[in-house]
Amino acid sequence: MSDLLANLRNEARLAPESGIVEVINAGREHKDLIPLWAGEGDLPTPGFICDAAKASLDAGETFYTYQRGIPDLRKALADYHARTYGRTFSPERFFVTGSGMQAIQIAVQCVAGKGDEVVYPSPAWPNLAAAVEIMGAQAVPVAMTQTAAGWTLDLDRIFSAITPRTKALFLNSPCNPTGWVASAHELQEILEECRKRGIWIIADEVYGRFHFGEGSKAPSFYDLADEDDKILFVNTFSKNWAMTGWRIGWLSAPPSMGQVIENLIQYSTSGVPVFSQRGALAALEQGDAFLDAQIARAKDGRRIVMEGLAQAPLIKMSVPDGAFYLFFSVDGISDARNLALDLVRETGVGLAPGSAFGQAGNGFLRLCFARDTAHLEAAVARIVKWVAPC
Amino acid sequence: MSDLLANLRNEARLAPESGIVEVINAGREHKDLIPLWAGEGDLPTPGFICDAAKASLDAGETFYTYQRGIPDLRKALADYHARTYGRTFSPERFFVTGSGMQAIQIAVQCVAGKGDEVVYPSPAWPNLAAAVEIMGAQAVPVAMTQTAAGWTLDLDRIFSAITPRTKALFLNSPCNPTGWVASAHELQEILEECRKRGIWIIADEVYGRFHFGEGSKAPSFYDLADEDDKILFVNTFSKNWAMTGWRIGWLSAPPSMGQVIENLIQYSTSGVPVFSQRGALAALEQGDAFLDAQIARAKDGRRIVMEGLAQAPLIKMSVPDGAFYLFFSVDGISDARNLALDLVRETGVGLAPGSAFGQAGNGFLRLCFARDTAHLEAAVARIVKWVAPC
Repeated sequence: MSDLLANLRNEARLAPESGIVEVINAGREHKDLIPLWAGEGDLPTPGFICDAAKASLDAGETFYTYQRGIPDLRKALADYHARTYGRTFSPERFFVTGSGMQAIQIAVQCVAGKGDEVVYPSPAWPNLAAAVEIMGAQAVPVAMTQTAAGWTLDLDRIFSAITPRTKALFLNSPCNPTGWVASAHELQEILEECRKRGIWIIADEVYGRFHFGEGSKAPSFYDLADEDDKILFVNTFSKNWAMTGWRIGWLSAPPSMGQVIENLIQYSTSGVPVFSQRGALAALEQGDAFLDAQIARAKDGRRIVMEGLAQAPLIKMSVPDGAFYLFFSVDGISDARNLALDLVRETGVGLAPGSAFGQAGNGFLRLCFARDTAHLEAAVARIVKWVAPC
Repeated sequence: MSDLLANLRNEARLAPESGIVEVINAGREHKDLIPLWAGEGDLPTPGFICDAAKASLDAGETFYTYQRGIPDLRKALADYHARTYGRTFSPERFFVTGSGMQAIQIAVQCVAGKGDEVVYPSPAWPNLAAAVEIMGAQAVPVAMTQTAAGWTLDLDRIFSAITPRTKALFLNSPCNPTGWVASAHELQEILEECRKRGIWIIADEVYGRFHFGEGSKAPSFYDLADEDDKILFVNTFSKNWAMTGWRIGWLSAPPSMGQVIENLIQYSTSGVPVFSQRGALAALEQGDAFLDAQIARAKDGRRIVMEGLAQAPLIKMSVPDGAFYLFFSVDGISDARNLALDLVRETGVGLAPGSAFGQAGNGFLRLCFARDTAHLEAAVARIVKWVAPC
């Protein structure tokens, strides 16, 4: 290691590389690539959202702005939550952030530092654990198990992982990558246990609208919690409104934390561009139909990949109840990293190796089905053909 | 304190509020306000920059992108530095960030955590110290002194503040708020001492082009350092190209740190919108004339406020050699916070209280002169009239 790198703070030097990039690099030159590795759809942001941002630029909205977000957008977030969850929300609990990722970073900064622990079910999107460890705290994974009935979370295992050092439990439901969705009963038990232990919940309900069971949304802590429960909700405009590239999300927290969160925004990115916020405002005010279409598209995609991959007896999968990923394994193959590398080189289908989502994801592949149905059909056909002689 | 706030991490709860907001609130209702408190000019972003962002949105560039910045922009940053500093730069040393503030946050995360110290001259822009302390490290101010000849930095005092816990020295030259500019000789001594001690330099040269002495730029560590010196340069598009609201900046670091910096970007905001980067690219490729005009405008503004305030014998000021602020005091008045509050309420001139820039700034006011000359003339006339009977 060079003198330079040796002189860096350990937590910075040891932050992990993305486990997907290696596969993306291996597929870069493939002539007929179908990239299903990333957590994003294939549609660009709808025109009415871009138009709102462009109008804002034309109006000269290019100056510093509110650290917590422009009042119109905070109000629109309150309205969106009201119509989604059927109760009222104060605009004061919403804070606009420069991505859902930044909402996670700020949530972590609020509660965990050196010597602290954050417990989370695994497999999980790796960025949470990395954000925790960059702060000098420890991210403690608790393995979920895959059964014939799907992925299950053993609540006793989660609760026994809580120690006096634990400051928060992170829960991502619907789950990226497994598609698991916590039941209302599970959420209630988690809420009660965290209340009893006095620890925070960081609730990642980013995929809350992509729910394939009853109702227009997955069960949510919003259905159960009080305004002042110690829950930090992290969310993003990325998935619902095809805005991954905009880097805009929100944090929802008890309003009494307002000044603390404002300060943490001030000292990290100092707010989000007004013109981006105008785009997000258009998404909330005019984007219900687009969101419905996104959800319908994901449902179609889910059906296509599940029916298609069912033709390959070696493929083992659980039904994803939410989010927009299929997380599957191939009988007899335990090294998902090499599997993903071989697959993209030989078939041009790009999947994310499960190892990128923690040890509990070893042996799995993640496929994003929020994409064009023809591409999904082609991808599935290639995978089935390739797996057959395995 | 509520149970909620008591359960937050200390470093989050104790992050300071902006010292300027209170004054801004006091002036909000004033009918004839001249706001000179913020660190931004009064021109919106030029049209050719906005047009580039709008064209990118029209082209559907709304997906995830490179964590380090799009290659075109990194190359353009290398070219901009080459023509500014007269030597070649590798694009590999430039990392696009979601503001200069985020560049500082990432630089701090690279080098300092719990138990570490970062030394910096004060008065200083308060966000550096706050970013250091949010990471659990200690920001150690070393007071500069104001003499008849201007603000001076006692290098021996700075060097004796370095302890075994010190990981970095932060230097902002040209300085916000004082207008002080380090000489090439001072930079050389600092570089040599930091090399000897094995500590990092975080170099904030955001105002490097706003230099009122010889040459088109202030002395810079780029003139003296090697590619692999332990220097993290933080910078922004905000000031040069009137892009404060865009939240886009850059970090310049030894290329061997590339993967570490990429990871820290990944786990904080996961990159900067491509459409914003296209705007920044236009700024670098087509924005030299606009930047020259910005600098000329600041020179005019500086002359107006210095000549104007010289009419008030009670006002004591140093000549700012760089940046675009006048930092002045009023004889007999030591409480700058109340002075700023009274001034904005009674005259509508909004200035930032020096106390917002650390203890060494107590008793001073900061005036931003990168503004319309007629407004500056009016503001100066009001201040002179108001100070007269003090």
